[in-house]
Amino acid sequence: MIKGHQSWLFKSKPVLISSSAVGGPFEAKGPLADDFDVLHQDIWVGQDSFEKAEKKLLEDACETAIRKAKLKKEDIHFLLSGDLMNQIISSSFTARTLGVPYLGIFGACSSAMEGLALASLLVDSQNAEYTLAAASSHNLSAEKQYRYPTEYGAQKPPTAQWTVTGAGAAVVSKAGDGPYITSATIGRVVDMGLSDPFNMGAAMAPAAVATIEAHFKDLAVEPDYYDLIATGDLGKVGHRIATDLLTEHGLKIPSDKFTDCGLLIYGDNKQVFAGGSGCGCSATVTYGHLVNRMKKGEINRMLIIATGALLSPMSYQQKESIPCIAHAVSFEM
Amino acid sequence: MIKGHQSWLFKSKPVLISSSAVGGPFEAKGPLADDFDVLHQDIWVGQDSFEKAEKKLLEDACETAIRKAKLKKEDIHFLLSGDLMNQIISSSFTARTLGVPYLGIFGACSSAMEGLALASLLVDSQNAEYTLAAASSHNLSAEKQYRYPTEYGAQKPPTAQWTVTGAGAAVVSKAGDGPYITSATIGRVVDMGLSDPFNMGAAMAPAAVATIEAHFKDLAVEPDYYDLIATGDLGKVGHRIATDLLTEHGLKIPSDKFTDCGLLIYGDNKQVFAGGSGCGCSATVTYGHLVNRMKKGEINRMLIIATGALLSPMSYQQKESIPCIAHAVSFEM
Repeated sequence: MIKGHQSWLFKSKPVLISSSAVGGPFEAKGPLADDFDVLHQDIWVGQDSFEKAEKKLLEDACETAIRKAKLKKEDIHFLLSGDLMNQIISSSFTARTLGVPYLGIFGACSSAMEGLALASLLVDSQNAEYTLAAASSHNLSAEKQYRYPTEYGAQKPPTAQWTVTGAGAAVVSKAGDGPYITSATIGRVVDMGLSDPFNMGAAMAPAAVATIEAHFKDLAVEPDYYDLIATGDLGKVGHRIATDLLTEHGLKIPSDKFTDCGLLIYGDNKQVFAGGSGCGCSATVTYGHLVNRMKKGEINRMLIIATGALLSPMSYQQKESIPCIAHAVSFEM
Repeated sequence: MIKGHQSWLFKSKPVLISSSAVGGPFEAKGPLADDFDVLHQDIWVGQDSFEKAEKKLLEDACETAIRKAKLKKEDIHFLLSGDLMNQIISSSFTARTLGVPYLGIFGACSSAMEGLALASLLVDSQNAEYTLAAASSHNLSAEKQYRYPTEYGAQKPPTAQWTVTGAGAAVVSKAGDGPYITSATIGRVVDMGLSDPFNMGAAMAPAAVATIEAHFKDLAVEPDYYDLIATGDLGKVGHRIATDLLTEHGLKIPSDKFTDCGLLIYGDNKQVFAGGSGCGCSATVTYGHLVNRMKKGEINRMLIIATGALLSPMSYQQKESIPCIAHAVSFEM
């Protein structure tokens, strides 16, 4: 490692041998519905609280990914999981259900790629044979915790985003069938002074751009190395800002190669304002739709940059601006 | 790695080249006061909220550890930090201040050793040259978030514990002076059905015992390998339970070799009920007092098992029991 370097190159090329995407009723109506392994028609997922519903989504995602890898939970060396709930209870209670050694992580909506980066590093460094990386969010547990009870009917501006009800998980192994995880870039916190929680895309865009730039610099590759570069949940507003910033910084990515999971998941649905968000956004879109596209041969190399807004309702109330981060992981067939 | 194995053996022996402990006014009156690098006489640490005060403690700890290592923050490849605040804002805002690539973690009061285990693994696997592991807690930010505003004067039972106002940090490097980090054991979630947040020690004791047992099995060593085995924050009640459970399981550790950071930090002070707790408990006692004892030649080998109760106020209100975890790290001169 040289000073300033923030990327890991996985020389042994760990393999994402299976992945899963679990969604709710609203995701079931979206354009990516066919890429979900499980779609719940009940927003409560048969539970008596939204928090328990979210945990159930995450358990489903983990169990599905393990089953698709033809493994048992006892085969998993370590679970790395994160979510948006206070004290990441969705992840910790899922870790209780699975009973495997557990590393709790928090990177807000960047958690999916933070977990996958570490899960891949554990396999690459021969400190684990099979690792499971997972992340979840639930629209109504997030609304309740971060904003207002939805019963209030509070209005939102068009820059607001829609938290995905969903969970994704991936099993990483030293060998097997599936995309290789070839490298990861760990982000720095970037805070441009924005403090509007109804415009997270704008706040997170500079963090995404900083990590993309660091990735290309550290790995000494050009944007055309990838067939697809997708951010996590910048939405319409953040995606436009990120595109402009990258162009300003001399990194021109053709518009057909640069997208955002928050734009893909709900298509043109106006109900979601600027697009999807939440830990479940990049997790379900990457581990469902995009990995499926790789397996179909439509994408050979892709870079996923999951973006996270590291605020809390308390830090917002105390007039703090929003610290943002982005972690990138590269997938190659 | 073999199935069921949950420990990492660091073959290159990463070195804890510096560490720091920062405390508040109550810790300044305790028996370990001399082992703190910085002691604030103001519980607000000059800030206008307890949350900002906690962030300041964590920033102080990180900056002190970096300075003691004779490094600059630009030399640190990755910061791994966790705390008890919702969305770990103390850690994320400290990561903003430092500006280094950041991996947010959450293991409640086990965060200090979760971070140190990963920080050591990053150095051992040559994915980083210098890493910084940190954790913090603040008595009044924790009381406010987890329990009642202290102004209510709510009474507590004698099994309750006292959240440490403090932060600890450690710099890990591939070479240098200081204790080697030789191995780490990552815990599974253990939940015995206890649900009383005023008796965390009892809830966490079985998790500590499970990790200690796994450590000895995985590493094929006996308890007498270590001069000192210290849990994180079991306090009086949990320490007694852990001692009994270990004896039942055939792992007899002499009482002069088995202790708990939550027992050490405040000595016999009755005000703290069953003892200290919080992410700052094992962080400050380990990175201050115990590392100092190693450097003085009083301890050659020690095992720290940081314990975490992974509940949230919400999971408690929803009548859930408390999932607990413990992560162990071994230090050798």
